[in-house]
Amino acid sequence: MPETNLLSDILRRVAGRGRTGSLVPDNAEVLRMCRALLAERSEAAGLGLARQILDCLERKTQEDRNEIFLSIALNFGVDDIALRAAIDQWEPSKVHTARTIHFAAEPQSQELIRRLNKVPGATARLVAMRGALLDALPNSAAMKELDQDFRHLFRSWFTRGFLEMRRITWMTSAEILEKIIDYEAVHEITGWADLHQRVADPDRRLFAFFHPAMPSEPLIFVQVALTDAVPSAIPPILSRDREVLDPASAKVATFYSISNCQKGLRGISFGNFLIKQVVTELQREFPQLRTFVTLSPVPGFRSWAQRALEDDDPLLSSDDRACLKQLHAGSPSACLAKLAARYLTQAKRTNGAALDPVANFHLGNGALLYKIHPDADPSQRGIGASWGVMVNYLYDSEKIAANHQAYASRQSVIASPAVRSLAEAR
Amino acid sequence: MPETNLLSDILRRVAGRGRTGSLVPDNAEVLRMCRALLAERSEAAGLGLARQILDCLERKTQEDRNEIFLSIALNFGVDDIALRAAIDQWEPSKVHTARTIHFAAEPQSQELIRRLNKVPGATARLVAMRGALLDALPNSAAMKELDQDFRHLFRSWFTRGFLEMRRITWMTSAEILEKIIDYEAVHEITGWADLHQRVADPDRRLFAFFHPAMPSEPLIFVQVALTDAVPSAIPPILSRDREVLDPASAKVATFYSISNCQKGLRGISFGNFLIKQVVTELQREFPQLRTFVTLSPVPGFRSWAQRALEDDDPLLSSDDRACLKQLHAGSPSACLAKLAARYLTQAKRTNGAALDPVANFHLGNGALLYKIHPDADPSQRGIGASWGVMVNYLYDSEKIAANHQAYASRQSVIASPAVRSLAEAR
Amino acid sequence: MPETNLLSDILRRVAGRGRTGSLVPDNAEVLRMCRALLAERSEAAGLGLARQILDCLERKTQEDRNEIFLSIALNFGVDDIALRAAIDQWEPSKVHTARTIHFAAEPQSQELIRRLNKVPGATARLVAMRGALLDALPNSAAMKELDQDFRHLFRSWFTRGFLEMRRITWMTSAEILEKIIDYEAVHEITGWADLHQRVADPDRRLFAFFHPAMPSEPLIFVQVALTDAVPSAIPPILSRDREVLDPASAKVATFYSISNCQKGLRGISFGNFLIKQVVTELQREFPQLRTFVTLSPVPGFRSWAQRALEDDDPLLSSDDRACLKQLHAGSPSACLAKLAARYLTQAKRTNGAALDPVANFHLGNGALLYKIHPDADPSQRGIGASWGVMVNYLYDSEKIAANHQAYASRQSVIASPAVRSLAEAR
Amino acid sequence: MPETNLLSDILRRVAGRGRTGSLVPDNAEVLRMCRALLAERSEAAGLGLARQILDCLERKTQEDRNEIFLSIALNFGVDDIALRAAIDQWEPSKVHTARTIHFAAEPQSQELIRRLNKVPGATARLVAMRGALLDALPNSAAMKELDQDFRHLFRSWFTRGFLEMRRITWMTSAEILEKIIDYEAVHEITGWADLHQRVADPDRRLFAFFHPAMPSEPLIFVQVALTDAVPSAIPPILSRDREVLDPASAKVATFYSISNCQKGLRGISFGNFLIKQVVTELQREFPQLRTFVTLSPVPGFRSWAQRALEDDDPLLSSDDRACLKQLHAGSPSACLAKLAARYLTQAKRTNGAALDPVANFHLGNGALLYKIHPDADPSQRGIGASWGVMVNYLYDSEKIAANHQAYASRQSVIASPAVRSLAEAR
Repeated sequence: MPETNLLSDILRRVAGRGRTGSLVPDNAEVLRMCRALLAERSEAAGLGLARQILDCLERKTQEDRNEIFLSIALNFGVDDIALRAAIDQWEPSKVHTARTIHFAAEPQSQELIRRLNKVPGATARLVAMRGALLDALPNSAAMKELDQDFRHLFRSWFTRGFLEMRRITWMTSAEILEKIIDYEAVHEITGWADLHQRVADPDRRLFAFFHPAMPSEPLIFVQVALTDAVPSAIPPILSRDREVLDPASAKVATFYSISNCQKGLRGISFGNFLIKQVVTELQREFPQLRTFVTLSPVPGFRSWAQRALEDDDPLLSSDDRACLKQLHAGSPSACLAKLAARYLTQAKRTNGAALDPVANFHLGNGALLYKIHPDADPSQRGIGASWGVMVNYLYDSEKIAANHQAYASRQSVIASPAVRSLAEAR
Repeated sequence: MPETNLLSDILRRVAGRGRTGSLVPDNAEVLRMCRALLAERSEAAGLGLARQILDCLERKTQEDRNEIFLSIALNFGVDDIALRAAIDQWEPSKVHTARTIHFAAEPQSQELIRRLNKVPGATARLVAMRGALLDALPNSAAMKELDQDFRHLFRSWFTRGFLEMRRITWMTSAEILEKIIDYEAVHEITGWADLHQRVADPDRRLFAFFHPAMPSEPLIFVQVALTDAVPSAIPPILSRDREVLDPASAKVATFYSISNCQKGLRGISFGNFLIKQVVTELQREFPQLRTFVTLSPVPGFRSWAQRALEDDDPLLSSDDRACLKQLHAGSPSACLAKLAARYLTQAKRTNGAALDPVANFHLGNGALLYKIHPDADPSQRGIGASWGVMVNYLYDSEKIAANHQAYASRQSVIASPAVRSLAEAR
Repeated sequence: MPETNLLSDILRRVAGRGRTGSLVPDNAEVLRMCRALLAERSEAAGLGLARQILDCLERKTQEDRNEIFLSIALNFGVDDIALRAAIDQWEPSKVHTARTIHFAAEPQSQELIRRLNKVPGATARLVAMRGALLDALPNSAAMKELDQDFRHLFRSWFTRGFLEMRRITWMTSAEILEKIIDYEAVHEITGWADLHQRVADPDRRLFAFFHPAMPSEPLIFVQVALTDAVPSAIPPILSRDREVLDPASAKVATFYSISNCQKGLRGISFGNFLIKQVVTELQREFPQLRTFVTLSPVPGFRSWAQRALEDDDPLLSSDDRACLKQLHAGSPSACLAKLAARYLTQAKRTNGAALDPVANFHLGNGALLYKIHPDADPSQRGIGASWGVMVNYLYDSEKIAANHQAYASRQSVIASPAVRSLAEAR
Repeated sequence: MPETNLLSDILRRVAGRGRTGSLVPDNAEVLRMCRALLAERSEAAGLGLARQILDCLERKTQEDRNEIFLSIALNFGVDDIALRAAIDQWEPSKVHTARTIHFAAEPQSQELIRRLNKVPGATARLVAMRGALLDALPNSAAMKELDQDFRHLFRSWFTRGFLEMRRITWMTSAEILEKIIDYEAVHEITGWADLHQRVADPDRRLFAFFHPAMPSEPLIFVQVALTDAVPSAIPPILSRDREVLDPASAKVATFYSISNCQKGLRGISFGNFLIKQVVTELQREFPQLRTFVTLSPVPGFRSWAQRALEDDDPLLSSDDRACLKQLHAGSPSACLAKLAARYLTQAKRTNGAALDPVANFHLGNGALLYKIHPDADPSQRGIGASWGVMVNYLYDSEKIAANHQAYASRQSVIASPAVRSLAEAR
């Protein structure tokens, strides 16, 4: 994810506005404006005030903005008397008494964000601010409090039903295409010519979700290659010299890159919905497609292996240890696939989920761990994260529900027989 | 507001789908599906389930649907143990402890509606269902409980920042124009030819708000006549024979009709924002415009007068009483304006707000009660509601904030000197 | 075709512009302006002059406009000396010498129309003017001269490659839909509700051609009913109570109405292209469609029969004569189909083409005369023109080329065996 | 103008179609197809044939294509007997007899191009083919013959009334923006970042004309800088570091680059119309703009000076000669402006028009030669063509008509007093 592009972009755009000597109010004054907004009963006046607050916040330094937000998190409270009264009336199992508590206990910070969002264009600005906050205060407890309000509201506003999927092509505006270049997080887009082949070649597709209140900001996008066979390495897919395939004769659709664009929407997931809708769209356009797979990185592999070796992790067999030493010494190794299979199927978080975040995402969507490819990504990043190993996850619509169920309830990693036997060999 | 057009429209459209012998699950089964949706952890599976629930609900009779919703209102509770724990941790003035209660006390009905709204197109369907519920159960306490959840979510989803204002013209689709005809609530549009003059004549404008998730459903619209002078009666405005004015020479913009379109959005107000934005838009297009007024009905006048006479209301002078007797006997009366001024400025609700709902709306927006016109609306409806009296409210952008403030804080009805002296004459 | 809608529409719209006392130049002055336009070498000045001439022409009475155009037709000549020189250089079979003559002999009227057409929006205005001229002077020889220039240019400007086919639906603007109602020439559209079922019912389609310089003026449109079987009468197709068919299960597409919209484009044919493209479009959307037919009127039948009886036409057998007497006496008659078959297959123009204009159009397109239906159109118009007889022409893409060829070269009316045996029975 | 981009682009796109072994018919066969198209009476069959011919022509080598076109130019003749008869009927001053000759003398090549243009998308393909022909056969007499037909038809099809002006921004599709980069002919656009500042900076504008049958092919475009003062050099305008100006405070609009995009439209002029419409558009958006000038190259200056020196041209004074020697020796010279003034105002073609093509274009549009700037274009191209001299032409709407008139009738170069006195100093 790019470093807070959206906010800096907004800041650059608004930079000119207040230039002419207008002073930005101090932090205490901004907090007073926020209180006034909460008290305002005229919607029109409220709208004007909300606009001013957003402008002020964007013109503050990051430090000042953090301070203001923390203050809001900690001090924009509730009416204690009303809340006490609601609690006193509570009768367990009477929903309406809980509902009264719910509304009485809503912190004003939540209503404040809701009122700021009334300003046309505010949604993108609030997303950008949350992104910068997450960046600046990753571990602050107060920030985590406030973030509950942001997440709660963003989950509601960025509901699937409001999103629009658009195919990105060479007919798309430069404004959006430029953002695609910036936001690509997996396999860097090196410029407009590289972008051209990813969106305009007949055997390539790029789809994104947009929210109507942020019409030129992609939220997430996925890149697809239509191919003859399940691919085993990324360079042939990214190559600009490759033979272009007639998409009407393709048999496989490969999802080779998924990028979240907005740091400020962390925790609001769209990827699963996007993949499902792209599968539907592709099946409609190319009924002959039979196989839907990913070609995915294994971002946690190498660091896990390093720790496992240091910690003498019992998952590692003695062969594994020997293999790892070779790898760390820089020699290629035939044992790489076996080791990756072990990692992907057996390395778990405390809650039982797969340790690898990409594995966890696709398994959680109901995909199956299909194939493991050493020598699949020779890029510096690929070598650095996983000695170049990549993986196919298979989306088989007949089995997605059962796979998801198995993974969700029992954390069973569903894998193909080939991967299973790799993983089990010691 | 039309009788639940949207829902019946939806029902008509979906009627075909389930025809082929498929049975609609019984109410208990639908409730089970709702519980399953709340428990579902796969987003994709959840989406499918949500779609099924919406389909079921729309195929139910109104009675069954009411029963299901009431059951949801009363039984989709909270985790009592968790709520108890949160309450036990509560420290007044510590916001984060209130926040914990807030989230713990959220009734599952709210989350259920949020999950149903993930289905593309669901928003319009939920709005339609709420409209039918409000209609069917106007006084049910359980329904009022559930309605708190609907209102809370709709307020968030239909935030000003998400709405799009569009001018409606003869270039607009028939689909939307047909709805404008249906939804006009003040001065009936008698057909396409009548509509044509309201949207296509150069001295007429019609603006509406839309939500991106309901792109062909207007939420509210306002009709504007550009005129030479402040109008004193509605027939010349609606007349199809009138001389058309060159809008570039108009001096006055008259808002002569405002209609809310969606019963299911009752309590979510857009009117004030719409008027303000239309004023901005008109000023941009016609900088020579100086005066922005309404020509508004006085819907509560006649029924108030009747009651006041019966109850011997002290607001009535003996002259007023004599006047009223004449009016009830059917004779026209010169005293009508004075009586209307008394009603509009002095008849109040218990909270001090103006009794007349239209007056309360415009005064609440910061408008000034400008002129009273007897003989302004000879239609059956106009005579029936107010003996034909209509009123101009003036939107003077310089004074809106102060007017609003005075009305909001002291319930002062701001009126022109002419209206004030009428009201004070006994 | 409607009575010069487009011109009166234009005139109405421009009516206001010149009102304030500005005098319209007299005819001689307008002719001088036309000469000045031809002499003008500044393109910008020429554009201004062209605009003025168009404005003047539209503000003239029809009589004055006719006079001006006739004057142009007869007097806007060529450079006789240059033409003489070109002729003197002519060598048969040397193309370039003919080309020199061609350009030297171009009448200035043609260049004048070309220069008028440079004004944005002029194309629609010129089409409207030609329509009015054709109406006013159907038999004037001078007008026919000028009309060669119009036709020559319009054929070039309204080339198939410039036209855009659009589906008309309920999402189309009221402005265009209103014109569809006006322009329907075969089966009157009685209002918006009737229009709704023709464009919005799932088993109905309406397609039109547009020219980019006249974006809200349909040029020609065709209406299609998707049906179970080849229809034998028009009332079930136009009925508003009919059972709506799921279009995905339709087997037959019936073209039941084709209307040319612009009188000013008479002689520029689009119908054949439109039908072909609609067939392609429907096959793409509904691959299961097998049969493409028309349900067409027989407009010349009754007047031909009347004349044939009076003239003792040898085509008529004695049975036919007896039949015709019955029909003229108002009794229904079993012999109607046979008589219609005779008319359609054997009544010819002097050049051998089918006498019936609708038959000539579809046979010229390569369709086959498939079925004859008495009692198919009980409307006043249907009875008046053909005692209610209607006909199916079949468009069988495999045979269109051969059918066209046979009709074009030998004037063979290609008919189904059933129609042939009807026609041959005496 | 780029090297036949459009055709090679088309060829690339169609490259795949015929690959699978299908043979391209030989030249004689293509000529037979052209004859068949002219003879075809079925429009549908004609359309298919026209499409095939276009496909064939595009798959031919340039040499073969040339041969086919020359053959068409020389052999697609007229009906000599009909033409003879028309000539025999001719009476000078009787327009209709000339009209008969005109139609009889139309070479079939013209009708052939017209029929090819019926194919949707054909216009762009024909434009590309003409471009390649002009390139390949710049001096062939036969080609000049054929080109008369192309020009005649293109003048009619690319009439001002059919063109659409669009502003190009960062919201425009990459497909069109990429062509802007390719087609810029005056000051090279070095990449997407350079393009961004030319179309997206608030004080820059780029406008283009498009034809509806070629919706993604710009025909001509002009670039505008909004500035404080009339600029005297190009580097500050192209600089990416410059201070951006608030366009609402700009006083001058400078047209700093005009590029024709389609070699195949040579001789069909749009530039004058485009400048006029851009002036109108800018005045509407920024009423405070007072001055509209160009900053133009002087492409013929240096080569003229060289020839003049060699030929001992009497326009040159002895000072001029001394100056020129210095310049050719590479030393800068104070006399440059004087010399350029002499060139621009006094160097003429045989018909009296200004020798410099850019001067001739702007003077012909009615602009005035306003200022001469040495050291205005230090690029290699600028030095190479004119020792870095650039010129402002002033578009003063009050005087355009008179200026044009003076230049068109008397070839008077209208220049400011400053330029005049420079030019007259010997």
